[in-house]
Amino acid sequence: MEISELGEFGLIDRLTDGLKNVNDSTVKGVGDDCAILRYPAGKEILVTTDLLLENVHFDLTYVPLKHLGYKSAIVNFSDIYAMNGRPRQITVSLGISRRFAVEHIDALYDGIRHACEVYGVDIVGGDTSASHQGLVISITCIGEAEEGTAVGRDGARDTDLICVSGDLGAAYMGLQLLEREKAASAGQPDFVPDFAGKEYLVERQLKPEARKDIVEALAKAGVKPTAMMDVSDGLSSELLHICKASKTGCRVYEDRIPIDYQTAVMAEELNMNLVTAALNGGEDYELLFTVPLTDHDKVSKIEGVKVIGYVTKPELGSALITRDGGEIPLRAQGWNPLKAEE
Amino acid sequence: MEISELGEFGLIDRLTDGLKNVNDSTVKGVGDDCAILRYPAGKEILVTTDLLLENVHFDLTYVPLKHLGYKSAIVNFSDIYAMNGRPRQITVSLGISRRFAVEHIDALYDGIRHACEVYGVDIVGGDTSASHQGLVISITCIGEAEEGTAVGRDGARDTDLICVSGDLGAAYMGLQLLEREKAASAGQPDFVPDFAGKEYLVERQLKPEARKDIVEALAKAGVKPTAMMDVSDGLSSELLHICKASKTGCRVYEDRIPIDYQTAVMAEELNMNLVTAALNGGEDYELLFTVPLTDHDKVSKIEGVKVIGYVTKPELGSALITRDGGEIPLRAQGWNPLKAEE
Repeated sequence: MEISELGEFGLIDRLTDGLKNVNDSTVKGVGDDCAILRYPAGKEILVTTDLLLENVHFDLTYVPLKHLGYKSAIVNFSDIYAMNGRPRQITVSLGISRRFAVEHIDALYDGIRHACEVYGVDIVGGDTSASHQGLVISITCIGEAEEGTAVGRDGARDTDLICVSGDLGAAYMGLQLLEREKAASAGQPDFVPDFAGKEYLVERQLKPEARKDIVEALAKAGVKPTAMMDVSDGLSSELLHICKASKTGCRVYEDRIPIDYQTAVMAEELNMNLVTAALNGGEDYELLFTVPLTDHDKVSKIEGVKVIGYVTKPELGSALITRDGGEIPLRAQGWNPLKAEE
Repeated sequence: MEISELGEFGLIDRLTDGLKNVNDSTVKGVGDDCAILRYPAGKEILVTTDLLLENVHFDLTYVPLKHLGYKSAIVNFSDIYAMNGRPRQITVSLGISRRFAVEHIDALYDGIRHACEVYGVDIVGGDTSASHQGLVISITCIGEAEEGTAVGRDGARDTDLICVSGDLGAAYMGLQLLEREKAASAGQPDFVPDFAGKEYLVERQLKPEARKDIVEALAKAGVKPTAMMDVSDGLSSELLHICKASKTGCRVYEDRIPIDYQTAVMAEELNMNLVTAALNGGEDYELLFTVPLTDHDKVSKIEGVKVIGYVTKPELGSALITRDGGEIPLRAQGWNPLKAEE
């Protein structure tokens, strides 16, 4: 069905049909000039926003629209968890070009709705417009944290331990794999991409999750990180952000960076440096955080968390300690779409 | 200067340099994964968002970037006022194509910052990205209202008075004028557009204001509207939204619709029906609201507010009462970018 048959308001009605709010803080959701939220005293409100543009942040050649919707929501939830908060509401703005049918937008929105169901988040508003410019997705997420529990990137202190959840570099390798299969398929309508043995990489790229479980495990263990970020631009880039904001240096051990087996195989296949991929590959959406040295035993017991280094005085700079004991200064070579334009 | 010289983080630092937060509810602004807000008990939080796309919502041939920035913020503030709230924070996401230099984005952001200064709003976050697709602006605004004072579109009741602020149709006529001068200038590098005697129309299109003053005047007069919206898609469209949400009908008097002299002159010049322009022209950002009949004297005393009709039972439908006493059903012919695509 052509979107023009429905018009803006018809499309919004269709997409938001049957939405149910699950959070007490959502007083009024979609359907008015604004959503109305009410947070009890003692809560801090967290706000984050992400803009995703076709052919900059995603390539519809190999990204299914439902996955794209899911991921668009997840990247925002991840920013809320990265502050030690819980996501509660999102607004969804879509710019839709004429080549999309209503069914395409249904699929995209289904993915967003599914992510919201999984993470307990309400869709409370948005904007929908025609676009001459491909698909545009802008999501703003609102979350909460108990007063005084939100964790910024500026609280890391000398001797703190640096921890990371999950493993790194897989989403980047998934992207390389998808790009390779795309190139191989060019001009071959019957081409079937081969992802055998590399399913994890594809999933990490196309359907990432936000580490709700880690934030909950930290709370349960009684650990409040001193600084935290999610790994969206690459470990190096995020470490440098924390060090800059916290006015510290850091040391990270090459042999402690968690890397999945499939990531290693793929790096080998592509003749790429594995550590470079793990340091600079983005979109892992793992949590990078620092904790006081005294919390060592507590964080060590949390499944899926690894201590990879420590915070230093600023004059020591930020460096990777290689397997042979050498030091290489960390550089932010992360994924930077404004520079990538060149 | 090329934006790629600065990169994403350099550009963000430049744009947000020297930002000062003026609202107590802003605990932490730009610079982390999320902004942190803290609203006291008894406040409701309002959230609205708008997506503006080049060549759909604005034409840079005649829209100066600073004005565009100002207007992008204003349209969001207007949605907060339309709920009887006060805007407090915004996030600003920009997608920037390669043809823009840093100085262009400075101008755009200057306009946004200026609007925030005028209306007392803090810029607390955002996202900045390359775009292959022209300029993309997505702004989310967060505001507040005392608990129980937010006004939706669903509270209008039979016999309520329908009121509107300012005058209608001028922004639409400004757009027609700008489009006419653009067409006339085609291929003529030395062309100087002639806006003499029509400055008000151009200003209404390029530099609209949000009606903070009306919301404050209503509070001062002790009037709480039963329903309220801002006129962004056209009076007809907004009236039908209120009637649908409130399950009512309405009658609006043609001869009471406030229209500026310049709007009338321009309609004459363009051989357009003036009332159609006032009913269906969008982007006026005036406030349309309903009040109980008993508030007649109070609203009549507020400068810049005009009573234009009344709310009826739903079975009477929604109609315009013409100068000769006839009735014409209201239709939503407002500006609808998803339909306009055809």
